[in-house]
Amino acid sequence: MKQIKLTIQYDGTEYAGWQVQPKERTIQGTIESFIKNLAPDHSSLIAAGRTDAGVHAIEQVACFKTSSHHEPGVFRKALNAQLPPDIRILDAEECNPSFHPRYDAKSKTYVYLIHQGETVSPFLYRYVWNVRYTLNVTAMKEAAHHLTGKHDFTSLQASGCAAKNPVREISFLDIRRMRSLRFLHFSLRGNFILFTVEANAFLRHMVRNIVGTLVDVGRGAMEAEEIKRVLSAKDRTLSGPTAPPGGLFLQKIAY
Amino acid sequence: MKQIKLTIQYDGTEYAGWQVQPKERTIQGTIESFIKNLAPDHSSLIAAGRTDAGVHAIEQVACFKTSSHHEPGVFRKALNAQLPPDIRILDAEECNPSFHPRYDAKSKTYVYLIHQGETVSPFLYRYVWNVRYTLNVTAMKEAAHHLTGKHDFTSLQASGCAAKNPVREISFLDIRRMRSLRFLHFSLRGNFILFTVEANAFLRHMVRNIVGTLVDVGRGAMEAEEIKRVLSAKDRTLSGPTAPPGGLFLQKIAY
Repeated sequence: MKQIKLTIQYDGTEYAGWQVQPKERTIQGTIESFIKNLAPDHSSLIAAGRTDAGVHAIEQVACFKTSSHHEPGVFRKALNAQLPPDIRILDAEECNPSFHPRYDAKSKTYVYLIHQGETVSPFLYRYVWNVRYTLNVTAMKEAAHHLTGKHDFTSLQASGCAAKNPVREISFLDIRRMRSLRFLHFSLRGNFILFTVEANAFLRHMVRNIVGTLVDVGRGAMEAEEIKRVLSAKDRTLSGPTAPPGGLFLQKIAY
Repeated sequence: MKQIKLTIQYDGTEYAGWQVQPKERTIQGTIESFIKNLAPDHSSLIAAGRTDAGVHAIEQVACFKTSSHHEPGVFRKALNAQLPPDIRILDAEECNPSFHPRYDAKSKTYVYLIHQGETVSPFLYRYVWNVRYTLNVTAMKEAAHHLTGKHDFTSLQASGCAAKNPVREISFLDIRRMRSLRFLHFSLRGNFILFTVEANAFLRHMVRNIVGTLVDVGRGAMEAEEIKRVLSAKDRTLSGPTAPPGGLFLQKIAY
């Protein structure tokens, strides 16, 4: 058996997330349905990050094993010919059979985009959270500072989700205000806030709960300092709402 | 009766174009259906450029008359609250009742985007023409040079379309190769060709027929010089195919 590593880009708007679920249209399920045409004996397609419903990926990494003799490029071309246009295989290569896309990841980077204002461009609505509150970015940055580093993120994981070890290390958490955003050849003016979060790994809903909590800080519903107490309480009910999925992009996996 | 001028942005993917047609979902029809809630006596919504099915607009301009006492901002907010997210009112203002968005336009600028390659990003497929041929941009620029200025564009208008006067003046026609394109906060690498065309007015399908013909030149199916003969023959059958609508954006109307 050889292992094939796919680099995948997708617009998650129309999908119930990465992972196969009965009766749901998922990214994994959709790709596997076409892999099996070429490699009926393929193993499960294992992803580096199991993105939730509506979440996008710029460079997802996923692997499957097969005894098929097809070259990786044949998989890339055949999959791109059959997949819907909102999922594309950017690259396919053979990799070491012992490589695991999730366990071997050194870090993952997610990006989250907020637009502040009355309404949002037709070209952006799938990709941003439109927030009507006026947000204090300085306070949000101060709160974000307390999240950086190694912490028990129980308070910021999905309720009901019980990871054996809720400790994660955020190596980079940046919040940037932008007055315009490039969309293809156009500059869309507006009031954007871009979050970039890099960590060794993430808990379920962790980025979206961080963003939702920082928005609570930004609109004055929570003090920046309070985030320390939220973290140490290990209680999901103390943090803010889960930000909607459309603003979230899995940007990059580092190995 | 006062006149309200709307600046409108839309993703045309899901619409049968601007103009109202029986049984079709159109941009004009969709906006008018919500205008009438606030202004039952409104006149037809007249646009600067009647974009075709699948064509997008960054800044379309359209006007309607009404005796309603609502402020323009009330129309903007109410329309944005009711319209689907792929149509947005960027601005609404009262304008002179004698203003006509199409006849008073000094020039219009359209942009067309091509991606050359095996496949196209999930974030771009609605907005580009993916061309698999290798295109010679130098030859395309040479051909484009012959189109600039005042010409009878009969050969490049939709067949069956009989404008009384097929003479138009292209004041600007630029073709630019780009190795990457910004999409929000990401840089999407690829092989892009961006066309920008400004003219006093356009015939039906004119930009898409220009792009289709220039692609014929770029792939070697037509000599750059031949475009002069195509123009002077005033015969649509001599020019290239109509480029698909998704790559086309109405960018700006100048008054």
